[in-house]
Amino acid sequence: MAATFKNIRSVIPLFDRVLVQRFKPETKTASGLFLPSSATSGTLPEATVIAVGPGVPDRNGKIVPPSVSAGDRVLLPSWGGNSIKVGEEEYFMFKDSDILAKIKE
Amino acid sequence: MAATFKNIRSVIPLFDRVLVQRFKPETKTASGLFLPSSATSGTLPEATVIAVGPGVPDRNGKIVPPSVSAGDRVLLPSWGGNSIKVGEEEYFMFKDSDILAKIKE
Amino acid sequence: MAATFKNIRSVIPLFDRVLVQRFKPETKTASGLFLPSSATSGTLPEATVIAVGPGVPDRNGKIVPPSVSAGDRVLLPSWGGNSIKVGEEEYFMFKDSDILAKIKE
Amino acid sequence: MAATFKNIRSVIPLFDRVLVQRFKPETKTASGLFLPSSATSGTLPEATVIAVGPGVPDRNGKIVPPSVSAGDRVLLPSWGGNSIKVGEEEYFMFKDSDILAKIKE
Amino acid sequence: MAATFKNIRSVIPLFDRVLVQRFKPETKTASGLFLPSSATSGTLPEATVIAVGPGVPDRNGKIVPPSVSAGDRVLLPSWGGNSIKVGEEEYFMFKDSDILAKIKE
Amino acid sequence: MAATFKNIRSVIPLFDRVLVQRFKPETKTASGLFLPSSATSGTLPEATVIAVGPGVPDRNGKIVPPSVSAGDRVLLPSWGGNSIKVGEEEYFMFKDSDILAKIKE
Amino acid sequence: MAATFKNIRSVIPLFDRVLVQRFKPETKTASGLFLPSSATSGTLPEATVIAVGPGVPDRNGKIVPPSVSAGDRVLLPSWGGNSIKVGEEEYFMFKDSDILAKIKE
Repeated sequence: MAATFKNIRSVIPLFDRVLVQRFKPETKTASGLFLPSSATSGTLPEATVIAVGPGVPDRNGKIVPPSVSAGDRVLLPSWGGNSIKVGEEEYFMFKDSDILAKIKE
Repeated sequence: MAATFKNIRSVIPLFDRVLVQRFKPETKTASGLFLPSSATSGTLPEATVIAVGPGVPDRNGKIVPPSVSAGDRVLLPSWGGNSIKVGEEEYFMFKDSDILAKIKE
Repeated sequence: MAATFKNIRSVIPLFDRVLVQRFKPETKTASGLFLPSSATSGTLPEATVIAVGPGVPDRNGKIVPPSVSAGDRVLLPSWGGNSIKVGEEEYFMFKDSDILAKIKE
Repeated sequence: MAATFKNIRSVIPLFDRVLVQRFKPETKTASGLFLPSSATSGTLPEATVIAVGPGVPDRNGKIVPPSVSAGDRVLLPSWGGNSIKVGEEEYFMFKDSDILAKIKE
Repeated sequence: MAATFKNIRSVIPLFDRVLVQRFKPETKTASGLFLPSSATSGTLPEATVIAVGPGVPDRNGKIVPPSVSAGDRVLLPSWGGNSIKVGEEEYFMFKDSDILAKIKE
Repeated sequence: MAATFKNIRSVIPLFDRVLVQRFKPETKTASGLFLPSSATSGTLPEATVIAVGPGVPDRNGKIVPPSVSAGDRVLLPSWGGNSIKVGEEEYFMFKDSDILAKIKE
Repeated sequence: MAATFKNIRSVIPLFDRVLVQRFKPETKTASGLFLPSSATSGTLPEATVIAVGPGVPDRNGKIVPPSVSAGDRVLLPSWGGNSIKVGEEEYFMFKDSDILAKIKE
């Protein structure tokens, strides 16, 4: 069920959690034609980082910040993540160590 | 079965446990009309923290307090938690590290 | 099968174990009427601590005493615990870290 | 299959293992009448410690002796233990940390 | 679903992750004859390393770099790895410690 | 399938492994009569230690030798062990910590 | 599917991995007669070590070399190992700690 808050910016991740929004498949071609649903279904492995937690302490008690930052474009694993619905949008919370890679074009 | 005590404030969490009450879906619109049950069933991912334990010791024996406090509005994972019924109300006990995020509007 | 000893006080828990007796559902109302069985079946999440073990050593070898004491009223998780029958009564042995909370009215 | 040795005293437990013999249900009443089998079947949770191992080293290499001794009367968990048959008798080997409690009447 | 980026070089692995591309079965003989599909189906255990993450810290906090480098030819285990599709090509992300061996001809 | 070597003494255990040979049920009585197969089938829990590995390092890097030695008579758990066939004989490899007890008559 | 390289010597194991080739059952007797397939099917527990990795670091960061060396004859467990096909031959990659014993005749 969708959350009662209206703005995903209200979510302040804890620990080493990373809040992301997946890329959405294009529904039109560059020239404006609608793509068939077979080309637009499925889940894209890319996401934009919305917010990150402060990190978790290592064995010496020092906080290790997450390896990604808000605004980063990242590659998600094909499993895991906790779905969060805000209005019509769906977001996911992953642990930092589950993020596979940054994407830099 | 519901507990014999009448006030959830009687519950003093141990260790790193966090006692929360989930937000309830609205059953009426702002203007007072009843919403259809399809819009009011399901579980909201948000909760209010009622009480927290003192925390657990790290490897050096120092107690690490929970990352949330009574009164915080938090985002719960879609799994886990131990249900506690007090009167007509249901509460949940989570471990601090299972809480996904704080919500600050 | 019920134990051969007659008094639960004969049980001296080891390590971080906590011996408890669950609260029993009321079978009559305050005014003395018998309640229907639908209102008296099920398991109450509350228990009284009968005895606790000495605790277990932390990584530095220091014994950490349990977080609850004999006489405490506690909240049990909905799973776990080892049943012990003494005469007609049933008791449970939990690990200290499985106890959810103390109850203080 | 029963062991070839005839005396359980031949068994010298290793590490933190505890050799026990479970109490047997009474088959007669105090006045000598035979009890019906329904009252004598099942497993009693009590046992007598026959022998214990020397203990296992903690993280600093210091041997931690078991928490129970030969002759102790103990409460067993409802699971686990390795059955050993010597002649007509059955014994069990538990790890020290699996023993729930001592029994002192 | 294929990623939106067009160049696998955009992927910057995190932690101890290793991005690889599996060798593809030959579809023709050296002399140019097409091989039957029975000889070209299946998965080759070899791959080329495309990029590696910076490594993960050991217990003293020192970063341990991966044991393989971009350009290395490696032997993959018969299980695991996270599939990533970029255009018509498929890549895999493994953890460094899952790579079985380097191949040096 | 039976090993190609003919003498179990060729096996030099590694780490904390213990090579044992289980006792075999008697097939004749002391007076030379053959026992019925019902009395000779099944697995005896006793074994003779044939050889032991050098041990494994503890957390300080010091090698901890196994707790049993070649020639010891030991009590095996009812599970585990890796079967090794040499000629017509079957041997088993256990980890030292799986051995339950020594037997001293 | 078989690897593209032709010589198993091209495989350089990583970490504490051990590359082995299992002994093959004899298909003829010493005098040259073919053995029935019932005597030649099955898997032999013996193998020759082809190559070993450099080892893995212990908790102090010191590399611990594998306990076996190229050329050693070893006893394999009845489970595990990663199959690698090179031409018509099959090899296996085990972790050093999975090897049961060395064989010295």
